[in-house]
Amino acid sequence: MNYQGFFKSALDDLRDQGNYRVFADLERHCGDFPHATSRTGETSDVTIWCSNDYLGMGQHPKVLAAMHEALDRCGAGAGGTRNISGTTHDHVLLEAELADLHAKEDALLFTSGYVSNWAALGTLAGRIPDCLVLSDALNHASMIEGIRHSKAERMIWKHNDLADLEAKLAAQPLERPKLIAFESVYSMDGDIAPIKEICDLADKYNAMTYLDEVHAVGLYGPRGGGIAEREGLMDRLTVIEGTLGKAYGVVGGYIAASRELCDFVRSFASGFIFTTALPPAVAAGAAASIRHLKDSVEERTAQQDKVAQVRARLDAIGIPHVENPSHIIPVMVGDPHKCKFISDMLLQEHGIYIQPINYPTVPKGTERLRITPSPVHSAEDIDQLIGALEDLWGQCQLARMPLAAQ
Amino acid sequence: MNYQGFFKSALDDLRDQGNYRVFADLERHCGDFPHATSRTGETSDVTIWCSNDYLGMGQHPKVLAAMHEALDRCGAGAGGTRNISGTTHDHVLLEAELADLHAKEDALLFTSGYVSNWAALGTLAGRIPDCLVLSDALNHASMIEGIRHSKAERMIWKHNDLADLEAKLAAQPLERPKLIAFESVYSMDGDIAPIKEICDLADKYNAMTYLDEVHAVGLYGPRGGGIAEREGLMDRLTVIEGTLGKAYGVVGGYIAASRELCDFVRSFASGFIFTTALPPAVAAGAAASIRHLKDSVEERTAQQDKVAQVRARLDAIGIPHVENPSHIIPVMVGDPHKCKFISDMLLQEHGIYIQPINYPTVPKGTERLRITPSPVHSAEDIDQLIGALEDLWGQCQLARMPLAAQ
Ligand SMILES: Cc1ncc(COP(=O)(O)O)c(C=O)c1O
Ligand SMILES: Cc1ncc(COP(=O)(O)O)c(C=O)c1O
Repeated sequence: MNYQGFFKSALDDLRDQGNYRVFADLERHCGDFPHATSRTGETSDVTIWCSNDYLGMGQHPKVLAAMHEALDRCGAGAGGTRNISGTTHDHVLLEAELADLHAKEDALLFTSGYVSNWAALGTLAGRIPDCLVLSDALNHASMIEGIRHSKAERMIWKHNDLADLEAKLAAQPLERPKLIAFESVYSMDGDIAPIKEICDLADKYNAMTYLDEVHAVGLYGPRGGGIAEREGLMDRLTVIEGTLGKAYGVVGGYIAASRELCDFVRSFASGFIFTTALPPAVAAGAAASIRHLKDSVEERTAQQDKVAQVRARLDAIGIPHVENPSHIIPVMVGDPHKCKFISDMLLQEHGIYIQPINYPTVPKGTERLRITPSPVHSAEDIDQLIGALEDLWGQCQLARMPLAAQ
Repeated sequence: MNYQGFFKSALDDLRDQGNYRVFADLERHCGDFPHATSRTGETSDVTIWCSNDYLGMGQHPKVLAAMHEALDRCGAGAGGTRNISGTTHDHVLLEAELADLHAKEDALLFTSGYVSNWAALGTLAGRIPDCLVLSDALNHASMIEGIRHSKAERMIWKHNDLADLEAKLAAQPLERPKLIAFESVYSMDGDIAPIKEICDLADKYNAMTYLDEVHAVGLYGPRGGGIAEREGLMDRLTVIEGTLGKAYGVVGGYIAASRELCDFVRSFASGFIFTTALPPAVAAGAAASIRHLKDSVEERTAQQDKVAQVRARLDAIGIPHVENPSHIIPVMVGDPHKCKFISDMLLQEHGIYIQPINYPTVPKGTERLRITPSPVHSAEDIDQLIGALEDLWGQCQLARMPLAAQ
């Protein structure tokens, strides 16, 4: 076996398919988001249009102050797993903040949203005897891996399709334990699940519900509790999962649920137990961000406003984008090479950074640019973006909507 | 199905077995490690004797300065996955620092050591056709989960037993891809693997080697490269894996290996791809810690000195501890209730915090106190520890070594 040769040829295949990833080497400028220095090739100034720091909270003075303060108070790392000296008071306070955010009895912190999905779904589905997991077809990789890890039986229901979900539920004995796993805002298409109807089905068929609100927490609902908060449905969900690394601008993940459920996952999940806790400064920064967004709607309103502006401007120049009720604007390209080419041109010629979204993040044939306007994008930033896209769409002879049909 | 009832009864079982975990709520005082405030029950001052911030780097001025600086320069979080706007120059620099530390072509950063093991082993063993994983019997949970995740065939060899490993290797066709996964310092017993002999076997039988140096990086070798560096063996290992959350005092994990291997894991590992990157400030702090420990041996020498002092003092009062060639001092108790009781008494009566190590972290029947002396423990801290243990061992009628036999 020639191991190096094997790696090389697998990477060559990726390159041939246009799916080899080149990471942009960036330096965001705190206080001047969304602007950054790109160090890929020659150093240049860029405007980032694909960040998941959706509200710019990563540069919010309250978040930074909390992190500086905790660094000086407690030092850099936690120094241990949660059980072995790694639980600091900042973790305890953050978990209380999260439980309050989702009006749940308790919350449990993980090193990332990925790990929270993997560990919580893996533990729940793996330990509840004979549990059947009903998983939306477009669930995130971290949920899929958690379900796979559990070794529980899994059924995939058609994306957001209530009839299909109900058919699968109805075919099972009422007594059998079931877990319906789904997301609120789907990150690549920006569509939103019918949460209420799914909860109705869960009640009818005695199932638990597990909702990933990673792309919604901080962004929707009067206090940033997500789509379930906006719709008044938080109490109907068994588990709400979220991240601290997107709208909240820091890093980390969590679940919020009943005290017993959180305690159960805390006690049995390998991915929670056997890993160093997040730094206290990260916990303090995330808590400050959550607290701020519980009170302030300014960032959410400004974001929605910027999203609407960008959509209208895209329409005005006939660049097709997927309609959806969220803050995510997918501009379909449908080919990995072309998608990367457009992204490279935007960066090199226009100082605009939008990473091409190719397989495996989206299915082959649905390659896209994914634009995420935020409150920190100015009117000039939008002008520059629209000008650049118009220019490129002209050059590349990409499909436009017939302007008359808009 | 009564879900809540199920969780409750599982937790009650844990309590009955003495394995229910209560986390100490601590606040470490930066600049005054290993001292902390305990907020479990009444607020009190404690000395931590079980931290994995082995060298106190979590309060090192260079680490803190680097983190403060990066926070002010780049903000709180990375704002995206490594591929989608989350690679900052601090990540690039840290990966270069890690590759240099282990004299490898490249390194790849993960959100934790747990995720690095899970994702790297899962991807390598899962994607190399017909790969057989030979896994040491005492490997860490994160390695076990990664191997399980790969769905590759797995054989467990007796802990540190070369004859058993060779028998298993020899029984396989030479051409079959094989991966030997093991640790250098085993964290709970403190024993060290025969790395050279394992590499010899790997060469003879055409196997890759994957070495977890989580409890060794920063602590051993002239530049803190771990046991493999100390023994001059780094170039013989296919993959060296480590953490940034223990001796380096921050958080995060990594692998160091050939350029192609790192690129392969980077390109195919779900746990690397689909998750928000570590905050730039975390990367900057970890890089500062690694850089410092490449040049400074002071911390390593002081740690070894403190470990020797504590061992000698335990011997002098006849408290048995497991002999080993590392910095970890396990004091066996052998019963989960007793172990928790001693730990509670140490905390309540003596202000000493040593978390009981019970199942599932160690096998049932091997419950222990795990003491980790560090350069930041003073002579008075050691006096206090020894006095407290002597007192408790007297009160609890625990086994002592016959003093004459020492
Ligand atoms: C739907 C969804 N769930 C979970 C995650 C993982 O969260 P985190 O980035 O905090 O690991 C992501 C993205 O990264 C996601 O898009
Ligand atoms: C041997 C070993 N490997 C990996 C890990 C995981 O590293 P991290 O704490 O960075 O997740 C640990 C402990 O946490 C460990 O003991």
